[in-house]
Amino acid sequence: MTGLFVTFEGGDGVGKSTQARLLEEWLTSAGRIVLRTREPGGTEVGELIRDIVLHHRGEVAPRAEALLYAADRAHHVATVVRPALARGEVVIQDRYLDSSIAYQGSGRVLGADDVRRLSVWAAEGLLPDLTVLLDLDHDIARDRLNADDKPFDRLEAEQSDFHERVREAFLGLAAAEPERFLVLDASAPADELAAAVRDRIETLLTPGV
Amino acid sequence: MTGLFVTFEGGDGVGKSTQARLLEEWLTSAGRIVLRTREPGGTEVGELIRDIVLHHRGEVAPRAEALLYAADRAHHVATVVRPALARGEVVIQDRYLDSSIAYQGSGRVLGADDVRRLSVWAAEGLLPDLTVLLDLDHDIARDRLNADDKPFDRLEAEQSDFHERVREAFLGLAAAEPERFLVLDASAPADELAAAVRDRIETLLTPGV
Repeated sequence: MTGLFVTFEGGDGVGKSTQARLLEEWLTSAGRIVLRTREPGGTEVGELIRDIVLHHRGEVAPRAEALLYAADRAHHVATVVRPALARGEVVIQDRYLDSSIAYQGSGRVLGADDVRRLSVWAAEGLLPDLTVLLDLDHDIARDRLNADDKPFDRLEAEQSDFHERVREAFLGLAAAEPERFLVLDASAPADELAAAVRDRIETLLTPGV
Repeated sequence: MTGLFVTFEGGDGVGKSTQARLLEEWLTSAGRIVLRTREPGGTEVGELIRDIVLHHRGEVAPRAEALLYAADRAHHVATVVRPALARGEVVIQDRYLDSSIAYQGSGRVLGADDVRRLSVWAAEGLLPDLTVLLDLDHDIARDRLNADDKPFDRLEAEQSDFHERVREAFLGLAAAEPERFLVLDASAPADELAAAVRDRIETLLTPGV
C-alpha cells in the first residue's frame, strides 16, 4: 500500500474544506488512514513562521515573505507530509505550491517562475499525485457579494482584478499539468463535486481499496 | 558620494570584529558615515527568525533552516543595507553570503550552488564591493586549543575536519572572485591587517575622501 498526496486549491470560500472533509470521510470508511493538513502552519515551526509574517504585515520585504513561506513548506513537507506518505497514508492538504505561485506570483512583485522554483526546492521536488482545483467564476462571487447594490469602489475594483489574475493563474497551472489537476466548477452542488473527486481518486488508488 | 559595501568573512575567532571596528574608526575619522551590521539578526524580523533557528535546533529541516537564513538576508538587505548604500554610507557587515555558502554548503546536506543561488535571489543580486577574508591556518588554531595536551577525541577530529572544509570553501570562493576578495593571513598583527584593509579600501573610495 503506497501513500497518496492530494491537494485542494482555489480562492477563499470555494469549498475546499468541505470537499477535503468529504474525501476524508470516504477514504476513512474505505479503510485508508488519512492525514489532513494545511499550509501555512501545520507544524510548530510553521506557526512561529506564520506569526512573523502576520505580525509584521507590511514591514516584511517581499522576498523575505516568500522565503518564510518556503521555509514553512520545507519543514512541513520534511517532517509531516513525507513521513505520512512513507507510512502509506493519504495526505489531504488545503493549499500547496500552486497557491504560492498563483497568489505570490500574481499579486506581489515576484515572478511566478521564481516562486515555483523556490517551492519545488523547499519541497525537494514533491508534487501532489492529484490537485483538485475548485474554480469559481469571479463574476458569480462578485455578484453575490454585491447583491446589496452598493457602488463598486476603487479598492473593490482592484481586489476584483487581483482575484481574477489569481483565478487565471490557477487555470494556467492546471492547463500546464492536466494529469495532475482535476478542475471542477465550484458552483456545482457539493455532493456532485465530491463524486467527481472520488471518481478521480479511485483511478489513483492501489487495487484492493 | 556613493555607498560602499564591505563584508568580513572567516571562521570564529579570526578577528573579524576587531578589523571591522578598526576600519570603522578610520573611515569615520575620514568623514564617512559608517553602518556596522551583521547577519543573522540586524533587524527585528531577523531576531525573530534567529529565535526559530536557535530554539528549534535539531528539529528544523535543513532546507527550512537555509530558507530561514535567506529570509533574514532578504529582509536585512532590503530594509537596512540597500537604504544605507543609497544614502552614500559605508556598510561594514560581519558575515554575508560567503558564510552561508561556506558553512551550509560544507557542513549540511545542501549543495553550495543551491545555497549561493538562494542567497543571491534573497539579496536581489547585491554583492559586496569588497570582502575581506581573514584566513587562519586551522592547524595553528587547533594547536593553540590543544596546548594543554589533552588527547584529540573523535568529536574534536570531526570538528577539525568540518572547519578545514569551511576554510577551504572560503578560499575557493576567494579564488573564484579575486577582484571582490582580499585574503589576509589572520595570524598577522591586527595593525598590519588593518593597514592592508585600508590600502584596498582606498582604491575603492571615491576621490576626495
